[in-house]
Amino acid sequence: MINVGILGATGYAGEELIDVLLGHQGVRITVLCAKIDRPQAIDKIFPKFKNRISLVCQEPDIKEIIAKCDLVFLALPHTVSMDIAPKLLSAQKRVIDLSADYRLKDAKIYEQFYQVKHKDKLNLRQAVYGLPEIYRNKIKAAKLVANPGCYPTCALLAIVPLMAFDLADLDSVIIDAKSGVTGAGRKVAENFLFSEINEDFKAYKVNMHQHMPEINQELSKLAGKKIKVTFVPHLLPLNRGILETIYVKKKAKREKSLPAGRQENLISLYKKFYKHEPFVRIKEGGEFPRLKDVVGTNFCDIGIKDEGGNIIIIAAIDNLLKGASGQAVQNMNIMYKFPEDAGLR
Amino acid sequence: MINVGILGATGYAGEELIDVLLGHQGVRITVLCAKIDRPQAIDKIFPKFKNRISLVCQEPDIKEIIAKCDLVFLALPHTVSMDIAPKLLSAQKRVIDLSADYRLKDAKIYEQFYQVKHKDKLNLRQAVYGLPEIYRNKIKAAKLVANPGCYPTCALLAIVPLMAFDLADLDSVIIDAKSGVTGAGRKVAENFLFSEINEDFKAYKVNMHQHMPEINQELSKLAGKKIKVTFVPHLLPLNRGILETIYVKKKAKREKSLPAGRQENLISLYKKFYKHEPFVRIKEGGEFPRLKDVVGTNFCDIGIKDEGGNIIIIAAIDNLLKGASGQAVQNMNIMYKFPEDAGLR
Amino acid sequence: MINVGILGATGYAGEELIDVLLGHQGVRITVLCAKIDRPQAIDKIFPKFKNRISLVCQEPDIKEIIAKCDLVFLALPHTVSMDIAPKLLSAQKRVIDLSADYRLKDAKIYEQFYQVKHKDKLNLRQAVYGLPEIYRNKIKAAKLVANPGCYPTCALLAIVPLMAFDLADLDSVIIDAKSGVTGAGRKVAENFLFSEINEDFKAYKVNMHQHMPEINQELSKLAGKKIKVTFVPHLLPLNRGILETIYVKKKAKREKSLPAGRQENLISLYKKFYKHEPFVRIKEGGEFPRLKDVVGTNFCDIGIKDEGGNIIIIAAIDNLLKGASGQAVQNMNIMYKFPEDAGLR
Amino acid sequence: MINVGILGATGYAGEELIDVLLGHQGVRITVLCAKIDRPQAIDKIFPKFKNRISLVCQEPDIKEIIAKCDLVFLALPHTVSMDIAPKLLSAQKRVIDLSADYRLKDAKIYEQFYQVKHKDKLNLRQAVYGLPEIYRNKIKAAKLVANPGCYPTCALLAIVPLMAFDLADLDSVIIDAKSGVTGAGRKVAENFLFSEINEDFKAYKVNMHQHMPEINQELSKLAGKKIKVTFVPHLLPLNRGILETIYVKKKAKREKSLPAGRQENLISLYKKFYKHEPFVRIKEGGEFPRLKDVVGTNFCDIGIKDEGGNIIIIAAIDNLLKGASGQAVQNMNIMYKFPEDAGLR
Repeated sequence: MINVGILGATGYAGEELIDVLLGHQGVRITVLCAKIDRPQAIDKIFPKFKNRISLVCQEPDIKEIIAKCDLVFLALPHTVSMDIAPKLLSAQKRVIDLSADYRLKDAKIYEQFYQVKHKDKLNLRQAVYGLPEIYRNKIKAAKLVANPGCYPTCALLAIVPLMAFDLADLDSVIIDAKSGVTGAGRKVAENFLFSEINEDFKAYKVNMHQHMPEINQELSKLAGKKIKVTFVPHLLPLNRGILETIYVKKKAKREKSLPAGRQENLISLYKKFYKHEPFVRIKEGGEFPRLKDVVGTNFCDIGIKDEGGNIIIIAAIDNLLKGASGQAVQNMNIMYKFPEDAGLR
Repeated sequence: MINVGILGATGYAGEELIDVLLGHQGVRITVLCAKIDRPQAIDKIFPKFKNRISLVCQEPDIKEIIAKCDLVFLALPHTVSMDIAPKLLSAQKRVIDLSADYRLKDAKIYEQFYQVKHKDKLNLRQAVYGLPEIYRNKIKAAKLVANPGCYPTCALLAIVPLMAFDLADLDSVIIDAKSGVTGAGRKVAENFLFSEINEDFKAYKVNMHQHMPEINQELSKLAGKKIKVTFVPHLLPLNRGILETIYVKKKAKREKSLPAGRQENLISLYKKFYKHEPFVRIKEGGEFPRLKDVVGTNFCDIGIKDEGGNIIIIAAIDNLLKGASGQAVQNMNIMYKFPEDAGLR
Repeated sequence: MINVGILGATGYAGEELIDVLLGHQGVRITVLCAKIDRPQAIDKIFPKFKNRISLVCQEPDIKEIIAKCDLVFLALPHTVSMDIAPKLLSAQKRVIDLSADYRLKDAKIYEQFYQVKHKDKLNLRQAVYGLPEIYRNKIKAAKLVANPGCYPTCALLAIVPLMAFDLADLDSVIIDAKSGVTGAGRKVAENFLFSEINEDFKAYKVNMHQHMPEINQELSKLAGKKIKVTFVPHLLPLNRGILETIYVKKKAKREKSLPAGRQENLISLYKKFYKHEPFVRIKEGGEFPRLKDVVGTNFCDIGIKDEGGNIIIIAAIDNLLKGASGQAVQNMNIMYKFPEDAGLR
Repeated sequence: MINVGILGATGYAGEELIDVLLGHQGVRITVLCAKIDRPQAIDKIFPKFKNRISLVCQEPDIKEIIAKCDLVFLALPHTVSMDIAPKLLSAQKRVIDLSADYRLKDAKIYEQFYQVKHKDKLNLRQAVYGLPEIYRNKIKAAKLVANPGCYPTCALLAIVPLMAFDLADLDSVIIDAKSGVTGAGRKVAENFLFSEINEDFKAYKVNMHQHMPEINQELSKLAGKKIKVTFVPHLLPLNRGILETIYVKKKAKREKSLPAGRQENLISLYKKFYKHEPFVRIKEGGEFPRLKDVVGTNFCDIGIKDEGGNIIIIAAIDNLLKGASGQAVQNMNIMYKFPEDAGLR
């Protein structure tokens, strides 16, 4: 049984973390913090937790957090995490950070996309990018896990197998991404009002979203060369879920070596790549993911269509689970040797 | 051709007014104002108006408004209208106020429900309550029209015929009201965020909503005695429309004189009552309104079920049209002798 | 560990039952049946179950069901259950029927509201109405549980405490009910198409819904006299959840004995009534339920407002959980002495 | 004043046509037909039309249609139009066909994508593809207009200017399309039920939708060579609107001649191309369309981002207006020399 704290407990990711951890038998939630006017019982803030947890949520008190927690989840806004993480780490606490603060290894790119100086380059260097399907071994011993962004999680799980088998022309990757509204967090702004989003659909931050450099960094690292994807996110009028439709050209030199036009082949490569993964499911030929099948779960569903020179990959996750809190718990399970799906079914 | 101004052009009611008036052949919009950081073309604020109107929206300048307008629509927040209306009225401009400032004749009740002192009791006395189906004659010559609230419009059109025929036990009226989200205006607050309202439903201001005294006032005036309804509004996860389900006991003494249980009878009384009204439609027996049929129109649809001692009335309107801007234009049409449905189909 | 079968596995209630039971550690699903063209793996029908269960769903074979199951859930359409239940019961299997077939004790009323003759009056007599908060003791030993309707569950939990304390004028009960669309089942009909329901809202079966006699029966039984409520259901444009706003007049003779106008009093009576119940939560004064807090849970949330002569009660449940499959599992837990919230958190 | 008939009046496109034409001062609707059990007043079928039109809708009677109409709109299912159109044309009636029957000039491709033999190759040859922005002159004198599909309308308006200025590598076109649910028509099938689509999102007919050959045909015709686009449509959980995100590589040889990276340049080319068009609006740099701005209008909004070697174009229309009935009325206006925006604001 480990003791965990959640900082940023009142955001969507924090709320979801509480929900997931309440069903995890190896964990006791001991601290809940948030930016908040006055301490308040969490079941007053979220009446849905009534009769399930009775902790008080308050402004963070580092000493108390250190005294009461083995592991701390930071579900904080970007730029706030890096103020707190160093204090917890120097007290030998393990940290899973759901913000973007420790994802981008190049502090300059961080500063360009998040508009602030990075203040903790020391820990940035040691942070492990928390995508279990790629970095499971590093996660086991990690002190600080940078939990991946929702869009990058979905994109990387969809694209990485192509790289593993050297199939893709990596300069051709186009990611047309669509996300539910909780992806933006509980941000109080006119453009997130119900009547502004309901019955509407639009692209935003066209090819300039802050998750794009995160995708580029991870693909480049795996490819051993600089990769730049085209990335256009859109806002769906629904609560939860990300679906990405990804267009990649096949690598010229490999086109011959693969039996042409046989998409079963590509699908079986994906199945092979993910065969030991508990949370990745590959669709059969002609079948594609839909949000309904992944929302409320930690699964990533992937469908593939091989169109000769072009490959179309469609992948879907729940942005609050595999795209945030579910993946954070999966990382915790790996760090503490719990069954990897504990609390996640 | 008359010249009109719209103050509060950036709210939902203001936006809808522009839309309706652009299709009205007797009107030229000459002034658009709003609380706004800097003057901005209205088609920059609302790109949907591009190629349709090119006016600049700015902070109100009373002199300019007086110079350029015959009639001014105030689509302002409550308490703001009563600062501006007196100035326009004293310059002999006619005013249609969509706020609540001139609806409640008893300033004390206004202060109780809107939490501010009333500052313009003089004009309050002369304001005409702009429900054409009841006050059409007074509206013709009105200088200041208090455009009714959305909930009261729907409730009054549903209940008044019962009163006219002396059928209702007016102490028994229960109004279970459901409104789309634009009814709250373009208010930037956490509880109006998309992810808070989508897939949710709840009651609010249970039996204490500010539209309740407005309904009570109008029913009491017509009844010649004090009436107090029970009124519970709910928030629907959709953009537009109000549907009210109203429960009334039949008056004991009248039960005999009416052929018992014959709902065709009650329906035909309603039809008779509204037979010359362009915007009220009575459903046949066994049929009831739905939002889909009234949204985008200025109609109020009413269905009635006579259950012996009890009467169930269901009425529906578009809260932004018959419940606000459409009714305001209907009032304008009456004031200026345009066909009553001009611009409203 | 008990073996259970689900008949009607492809409807919304059946799908939800699978989901809940997969998280229940005392249960093994051994049989899945449905009206289906050809046997098909359940994770082909519902891809969301992939990697979670691999049973084949097929047309029911009574012998096989009897051989493989201790308990059978009938998530079948009304009138189908009573063909199958007798066969299972005579083979000493226990049955929880989610249809309406065994709820209405008076077969004539059943025939009036469901338009078919009742074919199994013998078992009808012995069936236990599965509302644990009222009939827990009878459920323990029941062979056949008639799982309550969704609307009645919500209504009864809201009204029964008033009866227990003899507070209500039971001839005055008005239930204004609103339900999400899964309440109608997976019925393929034009009026359940997305574009027909989205952005719409309407009443249906006004004061003639088949759940009304079920409410009347249970209230009458508890009151020891014939009760007839007014019941108007409405269709909400959302997937899951029922919220009922209930209006009741206070009993004249009791008004004196209760400290007038003190709603804390009424609320504390409700709290007392439900103090040992794991799935009923009473809101504090001035607070009311919303769907968001109960959807995805087996809770019923109840808020109360005492308005002197009138009482307003608002109650909310998830129609697929406390209103169907969750309650069925709660009943199973009681029948088999599992912790009452096993599989339900 | 011309007399028009609508065949297929009960589908979404037919319903929308009635709505638009009721606001058109040069048109009288004289005939409404549909596949229907028995003749029924249109305002019984669609109560929203009550007090607006009182025609009876019935099974088509060709003689009566010929006697009463100058122009006939066919809002019929694919394959039904080609049974009726020849009879109307041979009686010298003009026809605007909203189905796909006269869009694909190559009957073999029609047969491949619609699974039936084409039965009217004679008229197929003479049919004019009704995209006013390209074929306005031919439409003026057309006897038979093949009203374009919704996806192709949006795609062609977005891509054609690139071709006009010879900017695009036409072998690289990727169209990621998203449509509201009315795009599928009023089809009664399980996968169009509210609870199946609400809160869901998915791709369908991945790179094999029947609108793809229509796009290919029109692009090929303009390019003078065979073009094959990649086309992936998705289903949005909302009623109306199509938004397409289109990715095109810039033509290598032109990259030099255009001032690099200056998207104002590309935008001004688009503005120039469409400068006389009443229904195409080009967004400024950094601005992109959203459904809200076009739904309920006949506009197509287009935003462009020039990313050096790649161009991203985002275009949006209302699928029932510019994508169907609005465009049909625009075509009628051209054919009969009405102002092109008559009835369309």
